[in-house]
Amino acid sequence: MKYNFGAGPCILPQEVFKQASQAVLDFNGTGLSILEISHRAPEFEAVMDETLQLVKELLNVPAGYSVLFLQGGASLQFSMVPANLLGEGQTAAYLDTGAWASKAMKEAKLYGNVTAVASSKESNYSYIPRDYEIPSDAAYFHCTSNNTIFGTELFEFPKSPVPMVSDMSSDMFSRTINVEDFGLIYAGAQKNMGPAGVVLVVIKDELLGKSGRKLPSMLDYKIHADNKSLYNTPPVFSIYTSMLNLKWLKAKGGVAQIEKENIAKAAALYEEIDRNPVFKGTCNVEDRSRMNVCFVTENPEHEKPFLKLAEERGMIGIKGHRSVGGFRASIYNALPITSVHALVDVMREFAQKNG
Amino acid sequence: MKYNFGAGPCILPQEVFKQASQAVLDFNGTGLSILEISHRAPEFEAVMDETLQLVKELLNVPAGYSVLFLQGGASLQFSMVPANLLGEGQTAAYLDTGAWASKAMKEAKLYGNVTAVASSKESNYSYIPRDYEIPSDAAYFHCTSNNTIFGTELFEFPKSPVPMVSDMSSDMFSRTINVEDFGLIYAGAQKNMGPAGVVLVVIKDELLGKSGRKLPSMLDYKIHADNKSLYNTPPVFSIYTSMLNLKWLKAKGGVAQIEKENIAKAAALYEEIDRNPVFKGTCNVEDRSRMNVCFVTENPEHEKPFLKLAEERGMIGIKGHRSVGGFRASIYNALPITSVHALVDVMREFAQKNG
Repeated sequence: MKYNFGAGPCILPQEVFKQASQAVLDFNGTGLSILEISHRAPEFEAVMDETLQLVKELLNVPAGYSVLFLQGGASLQFSMVPANLLGEGQTAAYLDTGAWASKAMKEAKLYGNVTAVASSKESNYSYIPRDYEIPSDAAYFHCTSNNTIFGTELFEFPKSPVPMVSDMSSDMFSRTINVEDFGLIYAGAQKNMGPAGVVLVVIKDELLGKSGRKLPSMLDYKIHADNKSLYNTPPVFSIYTSMLNLKWLKAKGGVAQIEKENIAKAAALYEEIDRNPVFKGTCNVEDRSRMNVCFVTENPEHEKPFLKLAEERGMIGIKGHRSVGGFRASIYNALPITSVHALVDVMREFAQKNG
Repeated sequence: MKYNFGAGPCILPQEVFKQASQAVLDFNGTGLSILEISHRAPEFEAVMDETLQLVKELLNVPAGYSVLFLQGGASLQFSMVPANLLGEGQTAAYLDTGAWASKAMKEAKLYGNVTAVASSKESNYSYIPRDYEIPSDAAYFHCTSNNTIFGTELFEFPKSPVPMVSDMSSDMFSRTINVEDFGLIYAGAQKNMGPAGVVLVVIKDELLGKSGRKLPSMLDYKIHADNKSLYNTPPVFSIYTSMLNLKWLKAKGGVAQIEKENIAKAAALYEEIDRNPVFKGTCNVEDRSRMNVCFVTENPEHEKPFLKLAEERGMIGIKGHRSVGGFRASIYNALPITSVHALVDVMREFAQKNG
C-alpha cells in the first residue's frame, strides 16, 4: 500500500487514473486514442465544453468571466498577469507570503512597479500578514491563496479596492471561494485539477485587452478568450484528465462537500502534530494550510529515523521542502482520510518507540 | 478498422498507446500512476534523462547544443525566438512558406525588424522559394521545414551566413538533418514526437543569454537550459510518452530507417495522385511534403462524394485545410504503409465508379 503525500504533481482519484488509462487506448469508443484525436475534432470540442462547464459549475463562476486553459503553468502566469494588467508606469501591489509570491513579484517588475503591501519573509513565511493596506491606485492586488512550500493558507481574502488576482494553484477546488471577489484567478492543474501541463485561468472579461501594450499572442488573455483556449494546440490529455477529475469532484458533491472532508483531514493531522510530543507544527496556527501540512520533529535527531519509518510504511513525498525542512504532508482532494490515519498511526508508532 | 490521417495531434504507434496507458495505472511497477509522480522524483528525472538522450542520439546532436522540453507549443516559440535572438533595432530574415511562417513573422515584429527573404504567398504557398539571399547582417534566418497546411517541404536548407532557425514541428524525426547547420530548431511534439503539450527546442549554447533584453524567466532559453527543463513543473505525461515514442523510433532503426519508409509511403500516395485521373496534387512536384500530402479532385463535384466514401472506409482526418481545400493525408512516422495502401484503394475504387 502506497500513501502519496506528494506536493504536486500529486495523487488523483484512482477511478480517474482508470478512465484516463482507458482513453489512451480507446477514447469514448471511437477506436482512437485520446492522444491521436485532433483538437479541432467535435469529440474534443465536447471535452473542452464539458471541462469549461464543470469549472463554471464547481466554482460558481458568474457571467462576465472567461475560463481559459493555458500552458506554461503558474510560472508563466507570473508574467502574463503583469503583461496584461500592469500598464507602463503603473504599480501592482503584492502580498508576499512565500517563495511563489516572491517569484511572481520578481516577474512583475519587468512590466512596471511592484510594491509589497506586507511580507512574512522575516519569519520564514510562517504566517499570513494581516492589517495591511492595498493602495487604491494600484493596477491590481496579487495574493497567493495557499503557500505549498510553507504550509500557510489565506482563509480570509482582503477587501481590495482594485482588481484582486490570486494564485490558487494549490487550493483551487479544495474550498469554496467567491469568484466575484476576484479580477483574475489562476491555478496550475497539478494539485486538485488534473495532471501537469495545463493551467486554469478565470478572468473578469472587463480586464481583457486593456494592457495598452503590444503582447505576444500567446501571452494575451484576450486572444485565448476569443479563441476559447484553442488559439493553438491545447494540452489535450491534461485537459481531458482534468475533465475526468472535475466530474469525480462533482459526483462527490462538489467543492462544498470536499471542503468538509479537507477540513476533517487537516484537523486529524494537525491534532496529532499538536498532541504528539515528538512533533510540532511550523506555522501560525490560524494560518495552517488544509492542503500542505508542514511539521518538524522537536528533536532534530528524530527527523531521519521518522522519515525512514514513514517510507517503510508506504508514505511517499512527505520530506519537507528544503526551505522549511522536516516534513510536509500534502493532503489534496484525492487523498483519502484513511491515508491521513495511516500517517497518524506512523507518528504514534514512532513516538511510542522514541518518545 | 480506422486509418488516422489527421494532421496533428496525430497517430502514434499502438505499442506507445499501450505502454502509456499502462503507466497511467502503474508507472514502472512503482504502484503509482505516471500522473501522480513528482517531477523532482528520481524516477521522473530518469525519464527526462532518457528522453534527452534519445533526442540527442536520434538527431545526432553535437556537443555545444542544449535540448529543452518546454510548453506553449511552436506558437510560443514564434515569440521566444525573437525575444531571445533579435536584439533591439536588429533585423531577422524569414522565409515565408505558409501560414505558420507568416504567424512567426508577425510575432517577431514585436521585438525588432523583420524582412521576408522570399515568399510564395502569391501562389497560395504551393512551392518553396529558391534563389533568395539571406542578409549577412540579419540576427538570424528563420524557415519552416515543412508546411503542414500547404503540403510543401524544404528538402535543401540554404547556406545561411547567420544562425539558421527552423520550425520543424511537422517533420522533426521524420528525416535526417544536420543539426550543426542550425542555431535553433523547434518542434511541437504532436506530430512525430509525442502527444500535445510539449515543444522540443534544440539550441546552440552560444545563442543562450544573448538577447540584451530582460526577459520573463519562462521565455528565457538560458533559464530553461540552466535548469535542465525543470525550471517549473514540466508536462510530465507528454514528456514520458514522447520518450516511449522515441524508444520505438530507435528500436525501428532510427531516423535514417524511418526516412526510407516515409519516402516509400509518400511515393505510393503521390504516384496514385498523379496516375488517377480523378485527383491532382496542389504543390510544386519537387517540394511535395512527405508528411502532409495535399490533393484535390479535378472535378470539384467529386470532392464531397470522395470524402464520404473515404470516411465510410474508415479514413479519418483527410479533409484538407480550408486554406487549400480538397484533401490532406498526413502520413507521419507512425502511420503504417498499409494505411496508405488502403487510401490508394479507396481512390481507385472511387475512380472506377466515377472516372
